[in-house]
Amino acid sequence: MSPSFQRLVRFRDTQGKVHYGEAPENKELVGTQVTIYTGDDPWDLRPSTQTAKIVEVLCPLPSVPIMYGIGMNYKGHIEEVKFPVPQHPVIFTKPPDALAGPYDAIPVDSRCTNMDYEGELCVVIGADCKNFIKGAHNPLDYVLGWTIGNDVSSRFWQEPPQSGNRHGYAKSFDKFAPIGPVIVSAEAVGIRNYAHAGDLDLQLRTLVNGEERQNSRTSDLLFGIGDILEHLSRGTTVRKGTVIMTGTPNGVAAFMEPPRWLRSGDVVEVEIEGLGKIRNTMVIS
Amino acid sequence: MSPSFQRLVRFRDTQGKVHYGEAPENKELVGTQVTIYTGDDPWDLRPSTQTAKIVEVLCPLPSVPIMYGIGMNYKGHIEEVKFPVPQHPVIFTKPPDALAGPYDAIPVDSRCTNMDYEGELCVVIGADCKNFIKGAHNPLDYVLGWTIGNDVSSRFWQEPPQSGNRHGYAKSFDKFAPIGPVIVSAEAVGIRNYAHAGDLDLQLRTLVNGEERQNSRTSDLLFGIGDILEHLSRGTTVRKGTVIMTGTPNGVAAFMEPPRWLRSGDVVEVEIEGLGKIRNTMVIS
Repeated sequence: MSPSFQRLVRFRDTQGKVHYGEAPENKELVGTQVTIYTGDDPWDLRPSTQTAKIVEVLCPLPSVPIMYGIGMNYKGHIEEVKFPVPQHPVIFTKPPDALAGPYDAIPVDSRCTNMDYEGELCVVIGADCKNFIKGAHNPLDYVLGWTIGNDVSSRFWQEPPQSGNRHGYAKSFDKFAPIGPVIVSAEAVGIRNYAHAGDLDLQLRTLVNGEERQNSRTSDLLFGIGDILEHLSRGTTVRKGTVIMTGTPNGVAAFMEPPRWLRSGDVVEVEIEGLGKIRNTMVIS
Repeated sequence: MSPSFQRLVRFRDTQGKVHYGEAPENKELVGTQVTIYTGDDPWDLRPSTQTAKIVEVLCPLPSVPIMYGIGMNYKGHIEEVKFPVPQHPVIFTKPPDALAGPYDAIPVDSRCTNMDYEGELCVVIGADCKNFIKGAHNPLDYVLGWTIGNDVSSRFWQEPPQSGNRHGYAKSFDKFAPIGPVIVSAEAVGIRNYAHAGDLDLQLRTLVNGEERQNSRTSDLLFGIGDILEHLSRGTTVRKGTVIMTGTPNGVAAFMEPPRWLRSGDVVEVEIEGLGKIRNTMVIS
């Protein structure tokens, strides 16, 4: 698909009105006057000649039908976890209420302990997709663009005695999936063909209170978006607006010695080359 | 909550119009003239004096925000699988497109092999629920009613080499969650208090081409709706319209010797005392 935008920002203006607009690169978003788009859905926007000033950057999607997470998808993380190399993408879900904005505080129920971050490259689906076949179909026909995400996780609830080995629950609490700050088109991200995971080679870093915890490249992904779409859409409709969190590299708190769990007030930043940065404060109560 | 209905049926009438209506018990639904309700949402219906004839019984919910499944919840099934007795409900999800009607054919992609049934008692949530505490809160304040479901599963995709141990994928294909035929209120199901799993004691049977495969009682459930709501709503909003498939008893095809997987054309019926019966034909292609 050919989205209307290069870098799509969803924001509130000086009158409190919500817009989609074209974001500048390498410039503070808040306070900037941007050209806005008309239309409610990011896959169906029309350019306009109007502008508005960004007062608050919002989650680039107002809602999602569902979010998919891919476990064990960075080679460095697979080594860290000592997990067998998966034959297929390992799938879990996050429900719609897990969605949060790029700068939102993340409320953490005090019963959700051993809190961890997972910096991730995210794909936003822009057209319904079913029975995608890698090689025969082009993933870019279904990708609206890329964004950044943090797959916030309570490792306590992820451990087998609590989870029975189903990892979704530990990652599905309200607002445990901040994404943003913008959705960047394939053209703007510099991708024209996307056959293999390694074709998209961007640096990904996660920082906690400014200290680097993850530093990898998206070319370390085991399964790329073609593999993931083929797997997710097998006999299944993947709806436009779906967000796929493609997996996290090594460096999560759980595998530090000793684990350095997130505490209340910790600021987690995830940044990806060319996509910007999200920044979320953990608020445990 | 006190829903307006006893036994809620969603149906198409002689003009093709879709209604909610009050279903008779122990009587064929198709061809019956029933009193209809006004309103679009099953948790917000108003009685009317109008009637309409049922021509086609539809899925009792037009859509769902998400469906939750509970793994390993019948003591007999835990023994059959030789799984450790869970300390908490074991959670997986089925996405909105998995929803199907009570008599729909279930399309099965030929790549989804080792097909199995799971007859289940389902709970439909009728009010948003967050931080429910068993004992302090009453589950019936959040339950719209009960219905029957089949948690259709491709055991091939459920096995660890394919799934990485995440069971949702194998159960998330389009239309792999038929429910119905009606939603039965707490009052009609005979429940006024619901403190423990054993308080709801209904016979559940699953038949394949008329041959009985599962025959158990819902009182064999390990975790009841109070336990499940407390677990699902911990720091998480469970939205009205959510369907919870509460788990399956022993007798699934996977643990027969040898496994007797479903074949194309097989008719699977799940019946629960007082709730009726769903009947779905598998169509593998």
